[in-house]
Amino acid sequence: MHRFFLLPLLALLLIAPAFAQSGETPRARHVVLFLVDDLGWQDISVPHHTEITPFNKRYRTPHAERLAREGLVLRHGYASAPVCTPTRTSIHSGRSPARTHITYWTLYADRDQTRPWKRGDGSSLIAPAWDLNGLGQEDATLARIFSDAGFRTIHAGKAHLGAIGSSGEDPLNLGFDVNIAGHAPGGPGSYYGLHGFRSNGRQGKPGKSVWDVPGLKAYHHHDVYLTEAIAMETCRAVREAARDNKRLFLSFAPYAVHAPIMANKKYLQHYPDLDSKEAAYATMVETVDHALGALLATLLDEGMLKDTLFVYTSDNGGLSAHGRGGERHIHNAPLRSGKGSAYEGGVRVPWIIRWPGVVQQGTVSDEPVISHDLYPTMLAAAGVSLPKDEGRDGVDLAALLRGEDLRREHPLLWHMPHFWGVNGPGIQPYSALRQGNLKLLFFQGDGRIELYDVFVDPGEAQDLATERPAETRRLAQLLAAELQRRGAQSPRLNGGGQPLGVLAALAKMQR
Amino acid sequence: MHRFFLLPLLALLLIAPAFAQSGETPRARHVVLFLVDDLGWQDISVPHHTEITPFNKRYRTPHAERLAREGLVLRHGYASAPVCTPTRTSIHSGRSPARTHITYWTLYADRDQTRPWKRGDGSSLIAPAWDLNGLGQEDATLARIFSDAGFRTIHAGKAHLGAIGSSGEDPLNLGFDVNIAGHAPGGPGSYYGLHGFRSNGRQGKPGKSVWDVPGLKAYHHHDVYLTEAIAMETCRAVREAARDNKRLFLSFAPYAVHAPIMANKKYLQHYPDLDSKEAAYATMVETVDHALGALLATLLDEGMLKDTLFVYTSDNGGLSAHGRGGERHIHNAPLRSGKGSAYEGGVRVPWIIRWPGVVQQGTVSDEPVISHDLYPTMLAAAGVSLPKDEGRDGVDLAALLRGEDLRREHPLLWHMPHFWGVNGPGIQPYSALRQGNLKLLFFQGDGRIELYDVFVDPGEAQDLATERPAETRRLAQLLAAELQRRGAQSPRLNGGGQPLGVLAALAKMQR
Repeated sequence: MHRFFLLPLLALLLIAPAFAQSGETPRARHVVLFLVDDLGWQDISVPHHTEITPFNKRYRTPHAERLAREGLVLRHGYASAPVCTPTRTSIHSGRSPARTHITYWTLYADRDQTRPWKRGDGSSLIAPAWDLNGLGQEDATLARIFSDAGFRTIHAGKAHLGAIGSSGEDPLNLGFDVNIAGHAPGGPGSYYGLHGFRSNGRQGKPGKSVWDVPGLKAYHHHDVYLTEAIAMETCRAVREAARDNKRLFLSFAPYAVHAPIMANKKYLQHYPDLDSKEAAYATMVETVDHALGALLATLLDEGMLKDTLFVYTSDNGGLSAHGRGGERHIHNAPLRSGKGSAYEGGVRVPWIIRWPGVVQQGTVSDEPVISHDLYPTMLAAAGVSLPKDEGRDGVDLAALLRGEDLRREHPLLWHMPHFWGVNGPGIQPYSALRQGNLKLLFFQGDGRIELYDVFVDPGEAQDLATERPAETRRLAQLLAAELQRRGAQSPRLNGGGQPLGVLAALAKMQR
Repeated sequence: MHRFFLLPLLALLLIAPAFAQSGETPRARHVVLFLVDDLGWQDISVPHHTEITPFNKRYRTPHAERLAREGLVLRHGYASAPVCTPTRTSIHSGRSPARTHITYWTLYADRDQTRPWKRGDGSSLIAPAWDLNGLGQEDATLARIFSDAGFRTIHAGKAHLGAIGSSGEDPLNLGFDVNIAGHAPGGPGSYYGLHGFRSNGRQGKPGKSVWDVPGLKAYHHHDVYLTEAIAMETCRAVREAARDNKRLFLSFAPYAVHAPIMANKKYLQHYPDLDSKEAAYATMVETVDHALGALLATLLDEGMLKDTLFVYTSDNGGLSAHGRGGERHIHNAPLRSGKGSAYEGGVRVPWIIRWPGVVQQGTVSDEPVISHDLYPTMLAAAGVSLPKDEGRDGVDLAALLRGEDLRREHPLLWHMPHFWGVNGPGIQPYSALRQGNLKLLFFQGDGRIELYDVFVDPGEAQDLATERPAETRRLAQLLAAELQRRGAQSPRLNGGGQPLGVLAALAKMQR
């Protein structure tokens, strides 16, 4: 994002106390972020709803279940955005996308690939001058801070943090000491080692594609699944960190379960009743869970697990508007819609946190949390001081993890002034916030305001915006203030000018 | 075997010419031995019989088929013995088991675990004082000679060359620079990474077992098959050899398809019509073929394949007397019996040789060859001088590989004065030879002599011993002479004394 310079922060770090939180919470020696891609809220066998859902029963994730038994399930956990890059860069910067201006997914430096949103009157909404390049070497990323504090920092799998041609395309420029298969693009050419993890391998054609997964040459020509290769390589690196007696910051981010949906054939037999696409998807979920199991077992082998803060989550909701089997937009049921959408299906994701000695085993919380909370949470848990600059949006979840009340000054906020390019419920340029049980959505293209009580109505079926005008007004005003406070960029009309903002839309609605 | 001292040979090597064969045959820059374990003659889709058999149709080995298309199939190829260690040590020493006295499989140093063979009269045949320890650091093994000549020597998989507690238990003591998962025992505790490749992992119990596969820790806890792990690790080592610009001697020996027969589940779907044991076995065969494919592709990637002598074979016939699905003793049909037996099912194995520029593509030969021929063949092909001591039994197959006639002074000989411990046709202490199309067998326990024309009768159904007394006598005499020439040890009776030798048995038979 190229706006927050690191050098003065480093100087601060050097004189900052090593243990910010000692006394209150034991220090985590190691920190692991296990960030699955496009994994929907119901896409594991650990229930995040008040009941066990049919999707919970479909998927086989015993290791996630173990994590839940030994940790805390956050049933109202959110991704910072309904698409990949904004959530990922928020985690690694501690800032919401509204503030970073990394509001959409990146690919090539300085190249805007977003699509206009066609309005009813024939005009189009186009993106603001958002940050096309993502994070860069100047940014005080989690990995940079951990690395400077002496941790072995390992990235494995999908990075998608900076665009091709910018410094952030290589995780090694973002503070990681080790990079396993991560680069700018957000999807793999193929999940199969027999394809060399290349789309051209998949299609039997020669030539290089931007989607070729880098590295992992040792796995080419072998009948091994990408997630497995990344997991094996990661466990190798974890053992090396243990051998070198290093503290560990691991960002484990399998490309799965992102498209292309390709079966790990050895698990297909487990899903005889699903159509081939959904069966393939289920094997991808199961493979990720195997990777989780391998990682936990390796950390245990090496004596590290007992001192590890381990966070399991996803970067956005499950794919549902295209590319899946069966009817569209219901793959995250009981949530509405999926990836790319403003509705809960786009941003509500699995969240499980394991931290022995702090998190009580087998507990559940309905406190809303969001991806960029992980930045202060992880640094504080490890006893590493945060950079002292202003302008981070995440909050330290330590109190929540200890079972106490969490104080949060500002509401959860989403801001994606972009159209994801596929039609579906809530898949429009939007801003939204959640405070308490209420969620207010503002669709920038058509000026629509909606209000839901997502605690009692997680499916967002009952729009309360006209029924509860005072709360709608209060939250719309709060949204406007939060957007301004974070410096959020407004979308534009392609003919020039700007569409209605949330306050104007509110006035029109309530006049 | 501890009888052939290396030091004087080394001195000879230093002054020997570097290219023994230049002029006649191009030199192979790299040499690969791909030695499958317990793989029967019909256990791949490459026919070794005069017709395609039902077993050829059962198994899926496209990479072996490619090897056959690009090389020479030796349809009358033999293992040096019907069990593992004697064949393996013969390959690596160039001596027949009769000469090495490594006539049975080894496990613990100086501990004889062979079982007596009960005779009809109630007495028992017991083993001679055979070499219980296998090869040792003193021996001029293939790897030692290649290593001394500057090759990168890699062993991968099952070694089974020396007993626990002797120097030969570790391939690194036998001239290998790199050892991937090889040690003294001849089978793995488990084929599953999820079991840590340990039998105790398989049974869910803690503790160490002699069968635990060493190394490969990076693959523990992952859902990966042992053959795959060994193949991935091998390809990594091959790439390192290429990077270091080294000539390569690779001994690739997957533990598969040795017991325990455990399915690689991802291929089970290919064998819906087989019983579960045979389906599991077929997946093991298929997995080995994937390893072959990966290795060939990696050699190609690294520009090495065009200069590689590549030999594909097995250490003995397919398991059939126990542990398999369906009826016993017919898993190598049309051959008779299987592993442990004197009959063709015990020793006739797949043989394919690929050597660009020398071996004509897609050719077939019915010239009999035997495992220990590989020692002189490989050294000569690479232009590395053989040690000058006497007493090697293998012959250089170069002429045969060039499509010319092979001159062989002495007959193929087998000598296993041991009972394999499982009942089945021909599973008895025995000696045998093959000359031309005729094979004479002498069973030491009951003094039985049999004669077969294995060219027209590969199933050894028609015993010609009485029908052709002159040939029986000639070959029995030749067998006695060959055994004596090689210093073969006779079995003993447990009450003291020796059973009839082949000449006495012949006299009794023909009196």
